Amino acid sequence: MQDSGDSGSPWKAAADRQTEREAKRIAVLRTAARAFNEMGYHNTSLDDIARRLNVTKPTIYYYVRNKEEILFECVRIGLEMLDEASNDVAGHDGSAYGELIAVMRKYAEIVTMDFGMCVIRVGEEPLTEESRRTLRSLKRSIDRKFRRLIERGIAEGCIAPCDPKIAAFTVAGALSWIARWYRPNGGLSPHDIAAQSIDLLMNGLGKTPGQNQNIRGGP
Amino acid sequence: MQDSGDSGSPWKAAADRQTEREAKRIAVLRTAARAFNEMGYHNTSLDDIARRLNVTKPTIYYYVRNKEEILFECVRIGLEMLDEASNDVAGHDGSAYGELIAVMRKYAEIVTMDFGMCVIRVGEEPLTEESRRTLRSLKRSIDRKFRRLIERGIAEGCIAPCDPKIAAFTVAGALSWIARWYRPNGGLSPHDIAAQSIDLLMNGLGKTPGQNQNIRGGP
Repeated sequence: MQDSGDSGSPWKAAADRQTEREAKRIAVLRTAARAFNEMGYHNTSLDDIARRLNVTKPTIYYYVRNKEEILFECVRIGLEMLDEASNDVAGHDGSAYGELIAVMRKYAEIVTMDFGMCVIRVGEEPLTEESRRTLRSLKRSIDRKFRRLIERGIAEGCIAPCDPKIAAFTVAGALSWIARWYRPNGGLSPHDIAAQSIDLLMNGLGKTPGQNQNIRGGP
Repeated sequence: MQDSGDSGSPWKAAADRQTEREAKRIAVLRTAARAFNEMGYHNTSLDDIARRLNVTKPTIYYYVRNKEEILFECVRIGLEMLDEASNDVAGHDGSAYGELIAVMRKYAEIVTMDFGMCVIRVGEEPLTEESRRTLRSLKRSIDRKFRRLIERGIAEGCIAPCDPKIAAFTVAGALSWIARWYRPNGGLSPHDIAAQSIDLLMNGLGKTPGQNQNIRGGP
């Protein structure tokens, strides 16, 4: 028998088994996120998820306790991806303006992906109060990072003076909404959608900014 | 007995009874919308709604068939309010730019109200496919009106050339999101939120529009 560098045992090493189990767990979660996004959380059963994976329901139970745990994990992973978006942005010029655009691009990309889309399309509403509290604190962290970037941009003079709270929600709202209307085969790539949405948010819909001085006025 | 102009009967006329019934039905729907918005659709029972109205569940059944019908009606009324927003805007200068701002203001105001908020916070997901189809066609009508206004604005030269589909979704997303984060006692009035969000959407977050020519580029 040739020495291939492994132990020669027909059983996998514990570490490999752990990695494999984790990969399979993620596959269960990703398949569930996709089903939730397409059919809605309440219209999706564990049987639907098992069927999509070509396994039986008991196999699913080997990786997760129940449907609530699946949704919690899907939303948690999606929110952590969004929260980390601001940590690993690159390719900008170091200004708050450049960094904000880089973070927005990343955010828009994530909400077109399985877990990110699940954050927006399903969200934490069906979960217990305790789970919702955990997820809401992740949301606050994402919001805080947007606000700080906008505050820094105002201080640097590249972002127009505004209420950072409203600005952060306007940006997050416009970009999150992509998850609602984006269709993978809809003719527009996530990259193009992100680029055009961000262009509108940074430069405005109006051709001559400030031309209508009455925007802030009421009837 | 004095002739007060009414029939003198202790029973109300059929037309008055109909009006009263309709007013009570709307009260049931509005109370339900408020409960759904606060606690979530699946966490709200008909008993919760009855309790908020100081009546019993059988009284509720006199006005609606079930919880699904309540949600359908709440979302339908909210969507019709949003759809009609573009019909009764006033006080603008007749340009597509002025009309777009007036419609956006109305839209932002409606999503802070019970039925409009229910459209965004709960939506049609828990309903049957047939109900969802009806509500989705109302959504398409709202989207179409935004797109046409933006197209008209581009033709009139007051809106920057853009993809009207992406622009309409960016605007609707940013304004719809208000329903998610707005709190009635949060210190910001719906009027102020609308004014500032619309200002950002029309004039952009950037201080010097177009300063970052690399927005559309990717890494």
